[in-house]
Amino acid sequence: MKKFEISKNRRVKITPYTSRLESYGVGGYTVYNHMLLPTHFKSLEDEYFHLKKDVQLWDVSVQKQIEVSGSDSNKLVQLMTCRDLSGAKVLKCYYVPLIDGNGNMINDPLILKVEDTKWRICIADSDVLLYAKGIADSMNLNVQIHETEISTLAVQGPKSLDVMKKVFGDDISRLKFFNFNYFKFEGIDFMISKSGFSKQGGYEIYVENSNSGLKLYDYIIKVGNKFNLKPGCPNVIERIEGALLSYGNDMDNNDNPFECGLDKYVNLESNIEFLGKKALQKVKLEGIKRKLMGVKINEKNINLTSELKLVDENKETIGYLRSAVYSPRFKMIVGIAMINLEYCKDSQNFKTNINNKEVSGSVCSLPMN
Amino acid sequence: MKKFEISKNRRVKITPYTSRLESYGVGGYTVYNHMLLPTHFKSLEDEYFHLKKDVQLWDVSVQKQIEVSGSDSNKLVQLMTCRDLSGAKVLKCYYVPLIDGNGNMINDPLILKVEDTKWRICIADSDVLLYAKGIADSMNLNVQIHETEISTLAVQGPKSLDVMKKVFGDDISRLKFFNFNYFKFEGIDFMISKSGFSKQGGYEIYVENSNSGLKLYDYIIKVGNKFNLKPGCPNVIERIEGALLSYGNDMDNNDNPFECGLDKYVNLESNIEFLGKKALQKVKLEGIKRKLMGVKINEKNINLTSELKLVDENKETIGYLRSAVYSPRFKMIVGIAMINLEYCKDSQNFKTNINNKEVSGSVCSLPMN
Repeated sequence: MKKFEISKNRRVKITPYTSRLESYGVGGYTVYNHMLLPTHFKSLEDEYFHLKKDVQLWDVSVQKQIEVSGSDSNKLVQLMTCRDLSGAKVLKCYYVPLIDGNGNMINDPLILKVEDTKWRICIADSDVLLYAKGIADSMNLNVQIHETEISTLAVQGPKSLDVMKKVFGDDISRLKFFNFNYFKFEGIDFMISKSGFSKQGGYEIYVENSNSGLKLYDYIIKVGNKFNLKPGCPNVIERIEGALLSYGNDMDNNDNPFECGLDKYVNLESNIEFLGKKALQKVKLEGIKRKLMGVKINEKNINLTSELKLVDENKETIGYLRSAVYSPRFKMIVGIAMINLEYCKDSQNFKTNINNKEVSGSVCSLPMN
Repeated sequence: MKKFEISKNRRVKITPYTSRLESYGVGGYTVYNHMLLPTHFKSLEDEYFHLKKDVQLWDVSVQKQIEVSGSDSNKLVQLMTCRDLSGAKVLKCYYVPLIDGNGNMINDPLILKVEDTKWRICIADSDVLLYAKGIADSMNLNVQIHETEISTLAVQGPKSLDVMKKVFGDDISRLKFFNFNYFKFEGIDFMISKSGFSKQGGYEIYVENSNSGLKLYDYIIKVGNKFNLKPGCPNVIERIEGALLSYGNDMDNNDNPFECGLDKYVNLESNIEFLGKKALQKVKLEGIKRKLMGVKINEKNINLTSELKLVDENKETIGYLRSAVYSPRFKMIVGIAMINLEYCKDSQNFKTNINNKEVSGSVCSLPMN
């Protein structure tokens, strides 16, 4: 794949760890929330197997945290999501679809309830700050909204607990999935959640100070050595197989949460108030016409830059492929596609055109087994 | 400068012209509005001189157009900006600061009034769509808001009119600065404005169909040959010297339009209603404490990735540098900096630290002469 110079400036920010990544040989970047995110170091496939077997240290500073506080903060956060957060508890994380007034997705963050009236929204790649401000400014809500300077590190993989215990002590083993708490390293408190953008288990460390973050980074690399820890980054093969959705790729502002398979986070029966409620009630009543599904395609290489049409044996469109990558585990391309409802079944075969040739594939459920 | 692979997928989109750019040897990219924007081809400095002498064809598809229509569209557009648009006319373009309820910048687009109740907002790098939706959803406004599929080409440089006449006919010479109209190429109407992100004069062509856009691209390259037209892109040297502000670099959501020198677009005396009005009235009353200014620094190389502190002879902070590049015209670094008001004068000298050495510079007015 061709290489290019990539801008680093105030608009497309580096992270506190960029110099470390480059010294460890980062090979590719993407830009996410106006910031650089590494995509691989040496080999995407080697890093896939390594992530599933050992443990990696990721720079996920791009998961910018939008902090919402003030007496109307609970109201504002709830207005943006169809998930009922009325019973949300401090020290817990919530994965939520954020939706607009049409009931369509605008982001799918993890939300941390930090205090009774203070939330941190760890966003996917869209300016949630502006949606929140649009609402707050219009309704004259008593809230403060700002983007924090937090630079998140993630420790991901089956040996992540081993590494985390070496750094933060044995207490960390009591932290449960989607909970967070505060743990000390060199006398400084770090907020840590048991979460992350992989299905291999792990932790996210919310670093508020760049200097202590760099010390922490280097220390994790050092003590991680005996567990074969390596610098890594979210792995597109692992995330597609594991059905971790990517806002902007698998779904965007043209899709509603039912179409994205996020039904369990749509609480229409609760008496909460959110902006897309009427729209989603209508969708629920009328039913959806398409849904995100997995696909497997008998081909080795793909470089998907826009939706790819999938057709059945009669050339009828069955849906559109949105994310795809070669999987060394399945030895074929795996992907996530928006499939017309009548074709959403495991046995459904299709044809499509990749690298100027017709290839065949089949629909499968998510996550992939 | 080191080179990297850069992701191309649905989240970070290519443009209809990306394959052409790569065949013409694009050397670097940035990401802007979730889309690839070239930063240079062979040499930034050669392209700077060429842009000021001849004419270039730019792919500026990243200037995404947010279309706002419906009976409340005039109200919504006005709510977002401090510039009085009550007298705005169809077929005219308006450069406007978009501001939030705190009176701080969220974007600085060119807005095109397309019909009496239809606007296109050609945005800088932030999701204005979400701010507009936040307001519209909260206030239950009768508007439709969507991101169009328009892929803008720009023809920029002193010979741009010569090229445009060859493509669209002599009528184009009647188009005045910051006006737009419709012109035919091969039987198809293209909306064209006399505008662009350079100070060298030029046009922006709003291409609604990728296929006709590619034909147009190739045709402009062909007929442009006799005017020494080359593929190009917004040039950071030219834009800094010309004081064309870059949202995210020179200013962001922490700055108000007075601090950005956009006073003439803040119409507090008019009776228009916009969300940041009270906040800006307060700023006006109290006065600003800092302002964007030009700077020149006696040094050859700079790679600015975050704000750089500038100090006076007594080590007092005078401001922070936000954009900077070496100018082959001034034979020193030129930049845009947020300077504390008492130091906003042409003769003000400062020191700063670049490439691990102390260097000296001076404040200057914008644009640079």
